[in-house]
Amino acid sequence: MKIAFQGEPGAYSEQAVFGYFGSVETEPCESFDKVFEAVASGRAESALIPIENSLAGSIHQNYDLLLRHNLHIVGEYFLRVRHCLVAAPGVQKADIRKAISHPQALGQCAGYLRERGIKPETVYDTAGSVKMLKESGARDTAAIASRRAAELYGMEILEEGIEDNPENFTRFLAIQPEAIRPVGESKTSIVFTLKNTPGALFKALSVFALRDIDLTKIESRPLAGKPWEYLFYIDFIGAVHEAHVSKALDHLGEYALMLRVLGSYRRFV
Amino acid sequence: MKIAFQGEPGAYSEQAVFGYFGSVETEPCESFDKVFEAVASGRAESALIPIENSLAGSIHQNYDLLLRHNLHIVGEYFLRVRHCLVAAPGVQKADIRKAISHPQALGQCAGYLRERGIKPETVYDTAGSVKMLKESGARDTAAIASRRAAELYGMEILEEGIEDNPENFTRFLAIQPEAIRPVGESKTSIVFTLKNTPGALFKALSVFALRDIDLTKIESRPLAGKPWEYLFYIDFIGAVHEAHVSKALDHLGEYALMLRVLGSYRRFV
Repeated sequence: MKIAFQGEPGAYSEQAVFGYFGSVETEPCESFDKVFEAVASGRAESALIPIENSLAGSIHQNYDLLLRHNLHIVGEYFLRVRHCLVAAPGVQKADIRKAISHPQALGQCAGYLRERGIKPETVYDTAGSVKMLKESGARDTAAIASRRAAELYGMEILEEGIEDNPENFTRFLAIQPEAIRPVGESKTSIVFTLKNTPGALFKALSVFALRDIDLTKIESRPLAGKPWEYLFYIDFIGAVHEAHVSKALDHLGEYALMLRVLGSYRRFV
Repeated sequence: MKIAFQGEPGAYSEQAVFGYFGSVETEPCESFDKVFEAVASGRAESALIPIENSLAGSIHQNYDLLLRHNLHIVGEYFLRVRHCLVAAPGVQKADIRKAISHPQALGQCAGYLRERGIKPETVYDTAGSVKMLKESGARDTAAIASRRAAELYGMEILEEGIEDNPENFTRFLAIQPEAIRPVGESKTSIVFTLKNTPGALFKALSVFALRDIDLTKIESRPLAGKPWEYLFYIDFIGAVHEAHVSKALDHLGEYALMLRVLGSYRRFV
């Protein structure tokens, strides 16, 4: 079984692949487009894509790719992002003067670095920063990356969980060409647009409220160039094969201009 | 009048400051924290902060900072992000082999670069890439940045609007210590949390629907570590000094655990 993900070996996305699928073969892809292409072409059976981060928000590009391709969401996974301070074997924490990583990771550890007088320096990739550090042989520098990246390159973890805000997690979605019929407590993800009439969203949400269907996510995204039109992303509890859910979606279809079910899948707990 | 923004001189945020405030003195800040601090301390009268991008979504960090500080939203501005291919004077488009910029800007121009066989190379900042290019004197390299960055460093624009997706705009908010009473068509931004009961969001939205108040944005943001709790961001048409709006907010207060009005301001058209 081969699973596509975006990034280098050792990336947080790869860590999520192993957490969700177990021990599988991975296909690293340089962009999200290529991840979707790998699954659509059959080169990979499935992929795990990040869809939202608790600090950085929804990844609209992946919603756009879900709308463009005919792939289905079949699972979800939450990864707590724990940044590690990584150095060459034998290096002590007191030796570290400089830290290299992706700007986002450096930003998430800014307080930690400042307190210890460690100078941040940006490179393109978190996992790549460990590789660069290893190649350079530097003993006054640390990389900031995942535990897996450290292990992959035979480097040592000086400290784990150095992010300033511990509430840093990323939600991933598993996608594949065929939809599934999930067992256990399920979630369904949909995307829709509405006519621009007053109270349109309230009516749309009534189809769920009237059937006691709980929403777990709602987000409006303005369609640029069309100041009164929005894409809505909704996740709710339930699967499309359940009668009350399929009735709610039929009802929503009466109001929606476009309605796309991205998939029903087992809820991650 | 001094206006704080995040980034280097020539950043898209600075371009937005001039677009919104006209010809003012700017205070470049290295982080959003420092932007808020500049206004809270009185070092700057006001600031312009990005709050959402049509491709990248909401900037939660700035919502967090709005909640942490006692500053008010007093205006909004939409900037269409138009990336320019920037080179030294006299360089021709056919000479360009390499493009340097922030990874996000390079990603947004990936198709353009690929078609022309131009190799992307990442640096930390869009405006900074123009400065680096100028200092290097390279004639086979272009930077990708704003028109203003090109002008600031006396460089030439070989092409403007090279982003693959033209629907790339960023919404900015003007913030200052005192709330205002806007004239003309207004918007109000609020943040709230709800008790975790079925249909809670539907009830919350009813306070607007029952008074024919149009929403222009809605977003739920999970509170990490609290899997059933959400922050809701809502923008709607109207200002807090209007009776129907203050009644809707009183009504919402009956359901909300926390409710914060971030400000009423004139709608950008």
